[in-house]
Amino acid sequence: MVTTDLRPFFNPKSIVLIGASERPGSIGGMLAKHLLEGQFEGELYFTNPKRDAVFGHKCYQNLEVLPKDPELAVLAIPAKFIPAELKNCAKRNIHHAIVLSGGFSEVGNYELEEELIKVSRENDIRVIGPNCAGIASTHTKMMAAMENTCIPGGLSIVSQSGALAGSMMLRATYEGLGIDKWISFGNASDVEEAELINYLAKEENSPTKVIFLYLEGATHGRKLIETLKEVTKLKPVIFLKGGRTAIGNKAAMTHTASLGGDPKIYKSVAKQTGAIWVESLDEAFDTYEVLSTYLDRGGKRVAIVTNSGGPGVLTSDNLALHGLELNQPSQKLRAQLEDLPAACPRENPFDLLGDATPERYELALRAIAHSGEYDTIITIMVPPGDADINGVARKIIEIANEEHQTAIISCLLAGEKVEQAIKIMRENGLPSFPTPKRVAWAAYALYKWQEIKKRA
Amino acid sequence: MVTTDLRPFFNPKSIVLIGASERPGSIGGMLAKHLLEGQFEGELYFTNPKRDAVFGHKCYQNLEVLPKDPELAVLAIPAKFIPAELKNCAKRNIHHAIVLSGGFSEVGNYELEEELIKVSRENDIRVIGPNCAGIASTHTKMMAAMENTCIPGGLSIVSQSGALAGSMMLRATYEGLGIDKWISFGNASDVEEAELINYLAKEENSPTKVIFLYLEGATHGRKLIETLKEVTKLKPVIFLKGGRTAIGNKAAMTHTASLGGDPKIYKSVAKQTGAIWVESLDEAFDTYEVLSTYLDRGGKRVAIVTNSGGPGVLTSDNLALHGLELNQPSQKLRAQLEDLPAACPRENPFDLLGDATPERYELALRAIAHSGEYDTIITIMVPPGDADINGVARKIIEIANEEHQTAIISCLLAGEKVEQAIKIMRENGLPSFPTPKRVAWAAYALYKWQEIKKRA
Repeated sequence: MVTTDLRPFFNPKSIVLIGASERPGSIGGMLAKHLLEGQFEGELYFTNPKRDAVFGHKCYQNLEVLPKDPELAVLAIPAKFIPAELKNCAKRNIHHAIVLSGGFSEVGNYELEEELIKVSRENDIRVIGPNCAGIASTHTKMMAAMENTCIPGGLSIVSQSGALAGSMMLRATYEGLGIDKWISFGNASDVEEAELINYLAKEENSPTKVIFLYLEGATHGRKLIETLKEVTKLKPVIFLKGGRTAIGNKAAMTHTASLGGDPKIYKSVAKQTGAIWVESLDEAFDTYEVLSTYLDRGGKRVAIVTNSGGPGVLTSDNLALHGLELNQPSQKLRAQLEDLPAACPRENPFDLLGDATPERYELALRAIAHSGEYDTIITIMVPPGDADINGVARKIIEIANEEHQTAIISCLLAGEKVEQAIKIMRENGLPSFPTPKRVAWAAYALYKWQEIKKRA
Repeated sequence: MVTTDLRPFFNPKSIVLIGASERPGSIGGMLAKHLLEGQFEGELYFTNPKRDAVFGHKCYQNLEVLPKDPELAVLAIPAKFIPAELKNCAKRNIHHAIVLSGGFSEVGNYELEEELIKVSRENDIRVIGPNCAGIASTHTKMMAAMENTCIPGGLSIVSQSGALAGSMMLRATYEGLGIDKWISFGNASDVEEAELINYLAKEENSPTKVIFLYLEGATHGRKLIETLKEVTKLKPVIFLKGGRTAIGNKAAMTHTASLGGDPKIYKSVAKQTGAIWVESLDEAFDTYEVLSTYLDRGGKRVAIVTNSGGPGVLTSDNLALHGLELNQPSQKLRAQLEDLPAACPRENPFDLLGDATPERYELALRAIAHSGEYDTIITIMVPPGDADINGVARKIIEIANEEHQTAIISCLLAGEKVEQAIKIMRENGLPSFPTPKRVAWAAYALYKWQEIKKRA
C-alpha cells in the first residue's frame, strides 16, 4: 500500500541527496549548496561514488553504506540511472523521493518515465518529478530546490514550471513577501497538483495561508476539480493557467508535454470550484499580498480616499470593471467629515486635495473606517511638492489597527519619493500597490475571497 | 488677433513668476524653487509686493517696476486676483500666461473663470490653466512646474490631471526614462489638449518622440479628433482616458468638472484617429519605453526566445490575446539552429532550456534576427542557479545593434538577480519589461504603431 502521507517531502527527519557534487551549474552542486545553506536541522547525507566530501560535508559512496535509513531521497543523477537508484532507495526503506533529473517524457522519453513509475509503484515510493526544480520548505529549513532565495511566510507555490516558480520566488523575496512551501512538480509522474494543494490546505499547524497554483495542463482533471472545491473552503487558491489561448496552449504542450484540453475550460473550472482566477503574475502577487493581510475583510463596497483626482478616477474605472461599488456616504458620515476644508467634496471618491496633510487623511480615514458603510478603503497618495507622505503612511497604519472591520489598502505613486512610505507600511504589515489598476484588483481579490467563503 | 504661437510657453526668452514666495508648501514657493533649480538660461523675474528677494533671487514689488517686458508670466497668486493681474500682464506686453491657481470652475466658481477668459481674450493673452500644475520643459530648462524631478528625454506628457502628471514624472525618472515637455493644462480655459498635442507634433527640431495624453473629458471633441488624425501621422500619441466606465466618468466629472460624454466614445475615437489606446499607467509607460527605442521596427510576426517554458507560455497567451502571430521557422532557419543542443525544440517559442549560456542565446538570436522571418523577438530570461544573466544581456545588446530590421525586446524576471542585467540593457538603450504580460504588450505597441503609420 503506497503511502498518502506527503509530510516527509516537506518536513523529513533525514534527507539523502543522491548525486551531490561541487561542479558549478550542476543540479547536484546547486542542491548540495542549497541544502547546506538552509541549515536543515535533521540528518543530511550526501552520496556520490566519486567523492568523500562535498562542500566540506561528508559524502558516502552510495546508499548502502549510509549509517541510517534516510526518510527522503533527493535525486540529482542522470535520468537513465533513476529507476535502478529508486530500487536502492527501497532497500533503505525510503518512501519519498524528489527526482530533479530531466530527460523523461518532456523530451519524448516516455519509456523511461513509464519505467520510473513502475519501479516507484512496485517499491511503494512516492515521487515528485521528474524534471522538476525541487521543493523548498522555509519553516522546516528544507531547501531541496534549485532556487533558495526566500524568506519564511504564508504563501505556498505549486507550479508545473520550475523556472516560473523560481522567478516567483525571486520576485516574492524582492518584494519582501514570505514563502512557506515552494513546489515544482515537473512531469507529475506520481504526486500531482491536486494531491499537493490538498496537503497544503489540510496540513496541521500549517504556515500556509494562501496557495498559488500554476498549471499548464491538469494531469487528472476530475480529481483537480473535486480537490479545488474542498480546498477553497479552507484556504484561498490563486490559479494561473499557462496556455489559456490556443497559441499559448500549443506552446504549453511543447513545454510540459501535457494535454491541456480546451484552454477555455480552466476559467470555468476556477469559477465552479472557488479558485481565484488570475491572468498575470502581477494579479497573482497582488492577490497574495492583499489576502496575506486581510483574509477576513473586504467586500463589494469600496471607498477611495485620495489627494489627487486623476488616480482616483482611474481607480474608479478599474473598480467598476470588476463590478465593485463606489457608494455615496450617508448624511451621518458626511457630517463626520465636516471638519475637512470646504473645498473637499463629501463624496466618494473622497478627494482631500493636493495639499492634504496627514491630519486630513486621519480625519477622513477614521470616520470612513468606523462608519460601517464600506468594506474596503483604498487610500491613494501622490506626493506633490514636499507633502509629508511618511506622515500619511503612519496615519494609515494607525487607523488600520483600530477596532473596525474595514480593510485599508493603499496606492502610493510614484517613484523614489514614496519608497520610504511604502517601506514603513510594509514593515507594519500593510500592503501598498503601485498603480490604480493594481490596487483596484487587490480590492477585487478581497471581495472575491469573501464571496467564495460565503458559498463554502 | 490672439497669437497661435505656443512657443513662449516652452521656450520663453524671459519669465516672470508672479507671487514668488519662500513659504513651504505654497505654490509660489515651489515654483520659485523649481525655476531657480532648473537654471533657466533667459531672464527670470520674481514679483511679490512683500519681498525684496526670494531664495536669494531679486524680487520686484510688481510687474510695473520690472526693468524689461518678460515674455511669459507664471501666476501663483489667489484666484480672485488673477483677472486684474492678467490686465497688468497686458500692460507689459505679455501674451502667454500659465495660471496655476485653483479656485475656478473646478470648485463651482464659473463666474471667476468666465472673467479670466474674458480678460485674457480682450488682452490677447494665451492662458494655460487655471488650476494646473504648470509646465516643465527639460531641454529649455524651463521648470515652471509643481514637480521638477525629471531628466531630459523624448516623452511629452499632456495631462488634465496635474497630480497624475506629477506621479508620471516621478515614475519616469525612477525608471530612467526622459521627458521633453510636461504639461498640466488644468481647466483648459483657453489652450486645450488639441492645441497642445498639435504643437508637440509640429514643433521644429522637437525633442519629443512620443506624446502621452491623459484626458478625463475633451473640451472640444471635434477639434480633438481632427487634431489627433493629423498628429498621429507624425508622432505616436498614447491615449489614456480617465473615466471610461460610468462610475469612473462620474468621478471624473467631480474632479475636473468636465462633461465627459459617453465614456465608450473615447476608445473608438482612438481607433478612428490612430491614437494608441491604453488602459493603465503600465501600458502607457511600456508603450513609451518600447517606442522610444523602436519607432521604425516591429510588426505582427513575433518570435520568443527563452530559457524557461512557463514564461514563454504566458507570453504566448498574451501575444495571442493581442492578435499577434507566433509563426514557425522555415526549414532554412531551422537548419541555422542546428548547433543548438538536440533537446532544444526548433520551434517558436524557441526554448533554449534552463542551462542556456550566453553563447546559446547568441546563436539563436542572431539566426532569428537576420532571418527576416520575424518583426520582433521577445527574449525571456529567468536566472536559474548561477546562470550568466549579464552575459546574456551583453549578447542581446550586441545582436540588437547588428544590421537587420528586427526589434529585440526583453523580459528578465525576476528580482535582485536580474537588476544588474536590466541596468546594462537600459544603459545601452534597450528596453526590458518585468512580466510576460508587459513584454507582450510592448510587442503589441510596436505592431500597433507600424499599422498606424501604414494607414497615415
